Amino acid sequence: MRATLMYGAGDVRIENVPDARLIEPTDALVAVTRAAICGSDLWPYKAMEPSETGRRIGHEFIGTVEAVGADVQTLKAGDLVISPFYWSDGTCVFCREGLHSSCLHGGRYGMEDVDGGQGEAVRVPQADGTLVVLPVEKDDAAMPSLLTLTDVMGTGHHAALAAGVAPGKTVAVVGDGAVGLCGVIAARRLGAEQTIVLGRRPDRIALAKEFGATDIVTERGEDAVERVRELTDGFGAHSVLECVGLEEAVVTSLELARAGGAVGRVGVPQNDELAGGIPFWKNVSVGGGPAPVRAYIEELLPDVLEGRIEPGRVFDRTGTLDDVPDGYRAMNERESIKVLIEF
Amino acid sequence: MRATLMYGAGDVRIENVPDARLIEPTDALVAVTRAAICGSDLWPYKAMEPSETGRRIGHEFIGTVEAVGADVQTLKAGDLVISPFYWSDGTCVFCREGLHSSCLHGGRYGMEDVDGGQGEAVRVPQADGTLVVLPVEKDDAAMPSLLTLTDVMGTGHHAALAAGVAPGKTVAVVGDGAVGLCGVIAARRLGAEQTIVLGRRPDRIALAKEFGATDIVTERGEDAVERVRELTDGFGAHSVLECVGLEEAVVTSLELARAGGAVGRVGVPQNDELAGGIPFWKNVSVGGGPAPVRAYIEELLPDVLEGRIEPGRVFDRTGTLDDVPDGYRAMNERESIKVLIEF
Repeated sequence: MRATLMYGAGDVRIENVPDARLIEPTDALVAVTRAAICGSDLWPYKAMEPSETGRRIGHEFIGTVEAVGADVQTLKAGDLVISPFYWSDGTCVFCREGLHSSCLHGGRYGMEDVDGGQGEAVRVPQADGTLVVLPVEKDDAAMPSLLTLTDVMGTGHHAALAAGVAPGKTVAVVGDGAVGLCGVIAARRLGAEQTIVLGRRPDRIALAKEFGATDIVTERGEDAVERVRELTDGFGAHSVLECVGLEEAVVTSLELARAGGAVGRVGVPQNDELAGGIPFWKNVSVGGGPAPVRAYIEELLPDVLEGRIEPGRVFDRTGTLDDVPDGYRAMNERESIKVLIEF
Repeated sequence: MRATLMYGAGDVRIENVPDARLIEPTDALVAVTRAAICGSDLWPYKAMEPSETGRRIGHEFIGTVEAVGADVQTLKAGDLVISPFYWSDGTCVFCREGLHSSCLHGGRYGMEDVDGGQGEAVRVPQADGTLVVLPVEKDDAAMPSLLTLTDVMGTGHHAALAAGVAPGKTVAVVGDGAVGLCGVIAARRLGAEQTIVLGRRPDRIALAKEFGATDIVTERGEDAVERVRELTDGFGAHSVLECVGLEEAVVTSLELARAGGAVGRVGVPQNDELAGGIPFWKNVSVGGGPAPVRAYIEELLPDVLEGRIEPGRVFDRTGTLDDVPDGYRAMNERESIKVLIEF
């Protein structure tokens, strides 16, 4: 069969490779009918070290099941199926939580003996968990949109969820590539009141507007931050969708967020240290800051007054105003957890 | 009146200062009955540059209203009141969202002409929005616990909310100071199934256990990460409460989080660059990573099939397998948004 191989930066070739075939009883063999090139495929295209053997590539595809392994129960030859970019068993603790991208038995296409998606056929591991049968014919008019569900539309949706997009929110989308544009669709779908797109290419801006963008910011960096503030009563956006992954975009995204806001980042980072080493691949989120204690006093007061919680036990020393200097010393030397002053 | 002043690292003095008094019509004058020293007061105690005039300090207090300005409507002389560590108007857009710590007309105690909390009396700005009347006498047995609602208990609660603590979750608390210990109370109160505390001082560990900690980890750094993984089926904690603010604690917290987990950070950071420059003071959160597209295919499929969204319009070029190399070039040069391959 024929498939795409990448041999190094800028060196993409179509070659004959061994036919895809079933290996595990949980596999399906899928003849690809549609595939796509992903923005993340451009990272190796820009930077891959030269390789003598090349590597298979591609992770966005739709196809027809040709054969299934003995343990596959939900699929049969002839089914038209769509695959997410990461295969997953559908049964592990992470899949059950909806975090299929951390499946304990999952993996990526184009690695080891799993085919890449930009080829004529693919062995799909964990087929029951991975593939979704499409209730349409293989040349349905919706095929391009269905194909985006393998990655970019789901990724834009993920950014919007991570950024807390909801009815009435203001949204800023950093990145006017396919993921950013799908982020605009996701923001509108989730009820955003205002969706500001940072971008400057006329065709992409036009599409962003058709997808529901309400404002376009063509500035970059600090000027873009200033412009977004102007568009949002001086506050910044409730929800920022970081759909690039370059350092400048991450920094800009953090600055675009309003107090109490959230950045949903799905741009594959240049390096995993971006945004302070928050582990991108683990989908870990970080939040917090100074507590809005005024709000919590009313929430926690009944629990204290009725004795359900007793946080006052953290005070292990009591004194008068004159004891305050020694109280600082005692806390600084960890002799005391916390000092109470009575007047 | 007498109040606490800090003149530099390690130099805390009790001195006579001008009596607190009403200035604005929205002020209340409060005679302090209880105050406390906060872990965050130790930062200037460790590092403040020497000052000839000193600065007023303290932001945790309960007291009795002595007088109110002409515009104050909800308070009267004699009321026993509690103040959050940050005063706020209760009416601005942020207060209405519950983010009183970002109040547009709020501020901190001990700055400019607002008294510090570690003194005999305090002028409280925006008194109607800031103060909560306590329905108890000033020497009530619950007074220590009520006093923690000014800061540390609310801050521990904030960490738990930011970390997504909920029934059934595993929680790790980094920091065994007053905030960390209050974080244990908050985790239990919100239904955590397992609460692991990183700490090693016997008195604090004992208190943590009484507050509901299920496991104690005395190791630090990588060893602590390893031990928490052992205690959580190898996965790490769903929710991590970062209650220290030092760089090592932030790094450890990020590593303790399970895939899909969240870190709630309330430790006042050594510098605002910690955790990748995520603006601590703005309470901005950052989340995201590789999308669990498998979950979203089922969610988004009906919208595509019924034509409510049309993300396939991001494809602006279609070709066959042989066109793939040129497709990479076109996307890399931004000539194309995204390339569709038909088989």
